[in-house]
Amino acid sequence: MAGDGSDQRALQYEQTLMYGRYTQELGVYAKEEAARIRESGQRRSVSDRSLLEYDKGRCAKCRICTVRCQKFLISRVGEDWIFLILLGLVMALVSWVVDFCIAMCLQAQKWMYGGLDSNVFLQYLAWVTYPVVLITFSAGFTQILAPQAVGSGIPEMKTILRGVVLKEYLTFKTFVAKVIGLTCALGSGMPLGKEGPFVHIASLCAALLSKFMSLFGGIYENESRNIEMLAAACAVGVGCCFAAPIGGVLFSIEVTSTFFAVRNYWRGFFAATFSAFIFRVLAVWNKDEETITALFKTRFRLDFPFDLQELPAFAVIGIASGFGGALFVYLNRLIVQFIRNQKTINKFLMKKRLLYPALVTLIISTMTFPPGFGQFMAGRLTQKESLVTLLDNRTWAKQGIAEEFDYFGNFQAWQHPQVNVFVTLVIFIVMKFWMSALATTIPVPCGAFMPVFVIGAAFGRLVGESMAAWFPDGIHMDGTIYNIVPGGYAVVGAAALSGAVTHTVSTAVIVFELTGQISHILPIMIAVILANAVAQALQPSIYDSIIRIKKLPYLPELGWGHHEKYNIRVEDIMVRDVRYITLNCTYRDLHNVLLTGHLKTLALVESAESMILLGSIERAQLQSLLSQQLGRPRRLEYIRDRSLEEKKKRLSVVSCQNSDDGSQRASQEVRFQISTEESSFSPTRTSPPKPLKPALKRPSVVERPTELPTSPNDHSGIALKNLLCASPDAEAVERNNNNTLEVPVSPEHRRPSKRVRISVVDDGDVEDDMTMREIAEWEEMQLDEQVNFNNCKIDPAPFQLVERTSLHKTHTIFSLLGLDHAYVTSIGRLIGVVSLKELRKAIEGSVTVKGVKVRPPLASFRDSGTSSSENEATELHKLWDRHKSMSLPREHTPSSESDEKSH
Amino acid sequence: MAGDGSDQRALQYEQTLMYGRYTQELGVYAKEEAARIRESGQRRSVSDRSLLEYDKGRCAKCRICTVRCQKFLISRVGEDWIFLILLGLVMALVSWVVDFCIAMCLQAQKWMYGGLDSNVFLQYLAWVTYPVVLITFSAGFTQILAPQAVGSGIPEMKTILRGVVLKEYLTFKTFVAKVIGLTCALGSGMPLGKEGPFVHIASLCAALLSKFMSLFGGIYENESRNIEMLAAACAVGVGCCFAAPIGGVLFSIEVTSTFFAVRNYWRGFFAATFSAFIFRVLAVWNKDEETITALFKTRFRLDFPFDLQELPAFAVIGIASGFGGALFVYLNRLIVQFIRNQKTINKFLMKKRLLYPALVTLIISTMTFPPGFGQFMAGRLTQKESLVTLLDNRTWAKQGIAEEFDYFGNFQAWQHPQVNVFVTLVIFIVMKFWMSALATTIPVPCGAFMPVFVIGAAFGRLVGESMAAWFPDGIHMDGTIYNIVPGGYAVVGAAALSGAVTHTVSTAVIVFELTGQISHILPIMIAVILANAVAQALQPSIYDSIIRIKKLPYLPELGWGHHEKYNIRVEDIMVRDVRYITLNCTYRDLHNVLLTGHLKTLALVESAESMILLGSIERAQLQSLLSQQLGRPRRLEYIRDRSLEEKKKRLSVVSCQNSDDGSQRASQEVRFQISTEESSFSPTRTSPPKPLKPALKRPSVVERPTELPTSPNDHSGIALKNLLCASPDAEAVERNNNNTLEVPVSPEHRRPSKRVRISVVDDGDVEDDMTMREIAEWEEMQLDEQVNFNNCKIDPAPFQLVERTSLHKTHTIFSLLGLDHAYVTSIGRLIGVVSLKELRKAIEGSVTVKGVKVRPPLASFRDSGTSSSENEATELHKLWDRHKSMSLPREHTPSSESDEKSH
Repeated sequence: MAGDGSDQRALQYEQTLMYGRYTQELGVYAKEEAARIRESGQRRSVSDRSLLEYDKGRCAKCRICTVRCQKFLISRVGEDWIFLILLGLVMALVSWVVDFCIAMCLQAQKWMYGGLDSNVFLQYLAWVTYPVVLITFSAGFTQILAPQAVGSGIPEMKTILRGVVLKEYLTFKTFVAKVIGLTCALGSGMPLGKEGPFVHIASLCAALLSKFMSLFGGIYENESRNIEMLAAACAVGVGCCFAAPIGGVLFSIEVTSTFFAVRNYWRGFFAATFSAFIFRVLAVWNKDEETITALFKTRFRLDFPFDLQELPAFAVIGIASGFGGALFVYLNRLIVQFIRNQKTINKFLMKKRLLYPALVTLIISTMTFPPGFGQFMAGRLTQKESLVTLLDNRTWAKQGIAEEFDYFGNFQAWQHPQVNVFVTLVIFIVMKFWMSALATTIPVPCGAFMPVFVIGAAFGRLVGESMAAWFPDGIHMDGTIYNIVPGGYAVVGAAALSGAVTHTVSTAVIVFELTGQISHILPIMIAVILANAVAQALQPSIYDSIIRIKKLPYLPELGWGHHEKYNIRVEDIMVRDVRYITLNCTYRDLHNVLLTGHLKTLALVESAESMILLGSIERAQLQSLLSQQLGRPRRLEYIRDRSLEEKKKRLSVVSCQNSDDGSQRASQEVRFQISTEESSFSPTRTSPPKPLKPALKRPSVVERPTELPTSPNDHSGIALKNLLCASPDAEAVERNNNNTLEVPVSPEHRRPSKRVRISVVDDGDVEDDMTMREIAEWEEMQLDEQVNFNNCKIDPAPFQLVERTSLHKTHTIFSLLGLDHAYVTSIGRLIGVVSLKELRKAIEGSVTVKGVKVRPPLASFRDSGTSSSENEATELHKLWDRHKSMSLPREHTPSSESDEKSH
Repeated sequence: MAGDGSDQRALQYEQTLMYGRYTQELGVYAKEEAARIRESGQRRSVSDRSLLEYDKGRCAKCRICTVRCQKFLISRVGEDWIFLILLGLVMALVSWVVDFCIAMCLQAQKWMYGGLDSNVFLQYLAWVTYPVVLITFSAGFTQILAPQAVGSGIPEMKTILRGVVLKEYLTFKTFVAKVIGLTCALGSGMPLGKEGPFVHIASLCAALLSKFMSLFGGIYENESRNIEMLAAACAVGVGCCFAAPIGGVLFSIEVTSTFFAVRNYWRGFFAATFSAFIFRVLAVWNKDEETITALFKTRFRLDFPFDLQELPAFAVIGIASGFGGALFVYLNRLIVQFIRNQKTINKFLMKKRLLYPALVTLIISTMTFPPGFGQFMAGRLTQKESLVTLLDNRTWAKQGIAEEFDYFGNFQAWQHPQVNVFVTLVIFIVMKFWMSALATTIPVPCGAFMPVFVIGAAFGRLVGESMAAWFPDGIHMDGTIYNIVPGGYAVVGAAALSGAVTHTVSTAVIVFELTGQISHILPIMIAVILANAVAQALQPSIYDSIIRIKKLPYLPELGWGHHEKYNIRVEDIMVRDVRYITLNCTYRDLHNVLLTGHLKTLALVESAESMILLGSIERAQLQSLLSQQLGRPRRLEYIRDRSLEEKKKRLSVVSCQNSDDGSQRASQEVRFQISTEESSFSPTRTSPPKPLKPALKRPSVVERPTELPTSPNDHSGIALKNLLCASPDAEAVERNNNNTLEVPVSPEHRRPSKRVRISVVDDGDVEDDMTMREIAEWEEMQLDEQVNFNNCKIDPAPFQLVERTSLHKTHTIFSLLGLDHAYVTSIGRLIGVVSLKELRKAIEGSVTVKGVKVRPPLASFRDSGTSSSENEATELHKLWDRHKSMSLPREHTPSSESDEKSH
């Protein structure tokens, strides 16, 4: 049964491919799914019966019951909540296991370092070699297994949730590479985070789980549902990483979405809560904790958390964090740019791919070597330990506190006999700042959130300690003395800096959930908002920066307070010279349009005069139309027909095989006449010159689904929009008999024609005996034929705007529906087109953006997707080039058409 | 200058009205705005100069500087953040003042009650009379001033944010009525909340502030911007009500939006934080608090907030709250239904509108009378006091605690010598439950959140006390004794029940912010999610329930886990018999279409054969076209023309006035010829039989903007969609000279034609001397003319779907873009239409919904908006009826057309 299922899926897969990249063949899917379920139901009842026969004895009924239960359970599998619970459970386990392994790795390093305390050089070697090996392994492993696993993953998820298909990013290979790579990278003790990768891992998990669940049938093939599940998965990723369900949901919304469906919000909350719960329960079961609590629990006083007069200090933290955040993003990009722009370095590093990670790790771990420079910057603390000490309740500076602060345990790291704690903190901040910016450029799975969070906490602690030193008895005026709590400042700083780098305000919520205290809510909110305001004015967020570096398709955000966006209109930015094809165009027109432009979709208009927009056609469809018209099989058929005619003349004997073919031809004739009759509504459409031949050959198009160019590099295929564009199938046409442009070939027609084609291929007597000149002549003849769009996939309702639509509105619609282009029409007439590119230009004209125009150094993986379609394109070009080199006299010049277009 | 400004605005207002209800005349706006700014700039520089001349002495430069500063400040006023800060500030002040007044009112009642302790009867009178008077005043005041202020306001805001225009809901009158009505209602001590009304008040505030700010120019006329600001205002409303910025933002998203723009989220956070901050700072300045803290601060222990084994109890609270919440919504609706369905009661109450509120208040306050039944249910505590005591840290039940609990202050209310605290709690919950459900049906401004919150807290406390009694030493196994904290259960219960009633999970966040503790995050999240799951399966949310009761236009949510929504397609639910008009139809066709259908917009197709969709036209536009064609002014002109011709024949003398008219006519002729030349692209369009006459009369259409039916009951005018549909104006046509269907009248044409019209009206010699039969004949003649769509406002890009679009997708698109209908097309051809109604039916077919089909009892206000357009409609009907009564022979029958349509 499983085998049957997989066969059926393979069939489905083929049928999906039939129309190239259209993934939304819902009608077909639904019917096949229904048929499949019905079939499997029958099969199951058969197996029920066979079970009965096989074991007629005592427990037959019991067995049937079991089978039924199983059936019921499987039918329940389609429910969302089961999926979400499974996702939450799996991610909690993954998160816990990763955390456990990281802790083990870090402990091993400490143990090695501690064991060698007799010899400083050996100690140094151990301290440095360990992370270098781990990072190099991580980089190599991901590079070999799945280069897509490199980096944070949030930028890619943002792109995918916008509707762009980045399929290689959601495979099992990537999952394995990301999890193992991340564990090794974080186990090395480098200043790297696990948040971004966890968003990616959760999405991978959701995608794989979806695939797995689709084995049980149900609605897992639905693309829009999958996107909803991915949105929930992003929330789970953050949620299980920090045990912060609410913050996770909000953070994932802020970093991945422009418009958010509130119904996904439920899914996110449900899954993230479950995941965070399991994650913390695992800690309790492992006896790490006594009960479920926050990850970095603080114990600030509740009755008087802060004084109103401390607010300016919090505001200063916010503003400074804003500048710091922008600087971090800028620095990170600068490093990437520097390495890429230096050609010699770049060349060298491209050859020795693992040298760069090893080198960076060597530098960073040398700097943090505790007996060396590390002693001035608490180098021996891991990231987690640093954070725990920074968020501590007590005041470190000795002046302002009643009890003498005793530096014990990890706190000793902050104490240095020569320099005081302020200097240590400053050095820590400065060093960690560039280290983190540098470390996040290493091509391993890693995020930047946690390092930035720690730096922010250190900065906050610095301000707090200064305040405590400045006001030893607190600021409060009347009566009671409330000392200043530097830990509160650390919390504020952490939220503000991480908010500034990621351009989010939900870091505030994450901080509440991480520390388990919400008493500082107003200072944190104020600081985060100020930090965001400053950082957003200066730089894009770290994720947008990476999106630009990686040149992923994106749409910049409209900043707020830019009035121009309300005054710029679509007519100001649209491209007026639209590439279009008319209903009655010839293959030659098609050829020229395809040669001159590079748009992925072309507008179909009624005629060049009326310009009434009828729909849009994908470039791939047109390419396949053209290559079918000019392709070898058609030429062979032509030869066969010619020889057949000659034979007829000579022998006038009709073979058995040919009679079959003849009856087929008759049926085709009838069918074609019907279709021309139907298409009478378009008055300008002249009937093709040779009606019988094309009709005879047309059905073979349907039989070669895999021959259509599927162009996997067509990254901007938009999921949400596609969903609007599912074409009417045979049934729909039957119901609306005025529907004429698409006359699909029903299965009854298909099968005989298949026989025809097979017979054509089978009779080996046909030889390609045409000379090059003959071929060229034949092709010229073919090119002058009128295009038959009958079997072409037309999107009948492309998105339309009017000229007066404002930029603001256009942006909203593009991001809402995930469009990549829209036609501008005026009462049915096509007058222009706006694509993401124009929109981006228009927005970036008003919003200052520092785009990066270089290629990623080790990101050769991004080319892998494009290769196959390039091959196809070049094949087609070869065809055309050969065609050109023959230089036959032609009446038609491409320039005349383009003139016509730009009128 | 202010006078000039208001004149200009009046002009603008007229010009907005020109095209009926199109509010998105952005192009016109932008240009006028630019002109106005330029003008005022000139005027200002003039005033600068006059200032110089006036005061050439010492401080002239200083004054110029001041003026410039002022100018700069005014230019800054357009910025979003200034608006948001102002909004936050105003709302914080309003919230604080309202709270202060409520506290005063409640104190006054207590003081009266306390002062009369000698006589129980007098005490009872005082206890009962006071709330009755306040509620009656509140009900009467709002009923008289602005009946729109009644109720929560969240349902209305949800509808408005969906794009529906409910203009009367955002006026200054409503603001005053809502604030004063709310203060009185809450001051009475009834179980009512302030949250819902505050969402409405904040939105009112934003709308009024927008209007006020537009005095300084800028972008405040932009409708989409206003909707964004309203979304932020909703967040501010919740934020300043509970001093809960994060919860406020999330709650407002959940209750008002289906799709949320993340950029609004920033605005909401910014404004809500500022507002909450000011709100709490006011409390500090008023010496109520020492520093900024939470409203209902709790002091649960941090180190071990709860045991893992307590989780089942929390889950039980969640599930029970789910059932309770659903029951509350059901009960609330049941009460409303009962009162409406009982015709005698309804009739009586409609007469004596204030009797119902008074009666309900009397019943409730009698029940809570402290020396009476109130002693068993802590009747003397106000809502706030109840909540503070319920969230208390200590355990009330005496068994399980070390120290004897001393009931002091407000806690005494929970103690009763005869019954123990469990009974008191149960009575409290049961009594408050029906009281709250009943009280929220009173027609005063009130919400249901706070009462439900208190009931939830009481339920949680009950469970917590039971647990504490059951496990006196806590549940934790090894070593340390951790007592159970019933206060934590109360927090969980409050969040769960309020979440269940409102169908939100963000009540969890509100609870954290209200209590200032986040330690119970996981139990709260689990309980809230369970409560939501149960409640959503049983009943709509309280707000959706009110939306249905009030019959506001809405789109039900798709429940999750309903697979059918992916399999139902648009073709299954669409209406195939679309009302349409063709480009070459006659006025008679128009007439018949308008008579037979009641759709607000009609499709415009190229011809009945091709069915190519060109755009959609509003019904009002068509009505105005028809009434112009048949109206008296046109008939008078006809008479004048006839008499003029007669005169010409007789006198052949051309008067001076007529020569002016003649030149005008000539220019009109030229213009018309150009326009017919341009419209040659549509091949099926035959030229009208009498080209000169209609062209001559046409421009007068533009001169009567206020005469167009504006149909204020047209509630479903959709904001977001309209923005796509701004028509090309003169400039756009000049640029694209192929654009033919709309040939707008430029100002140069307008002015002379005005003179013509005035001259027509002015020459009093024309008399309406036609007999009824003559009029009927003339009208018949007019009806046979072809419709001239030149000055008609056509939406050139109505939203289109294809047949295969799934229900799920359609729902998404409708809620994303706020559509109320969409055309279903197949490659340009119109084949069906889907409106909100069909969608609603389809969804409610799969999602079980208990719709309420009765009218609100005191909600006569809902009719007020519709009256004017009904008048217009009846006028038009009169015209037609008269027409019919004449019963002239007609060739055309309406049935033939409808047959044609349904083919």
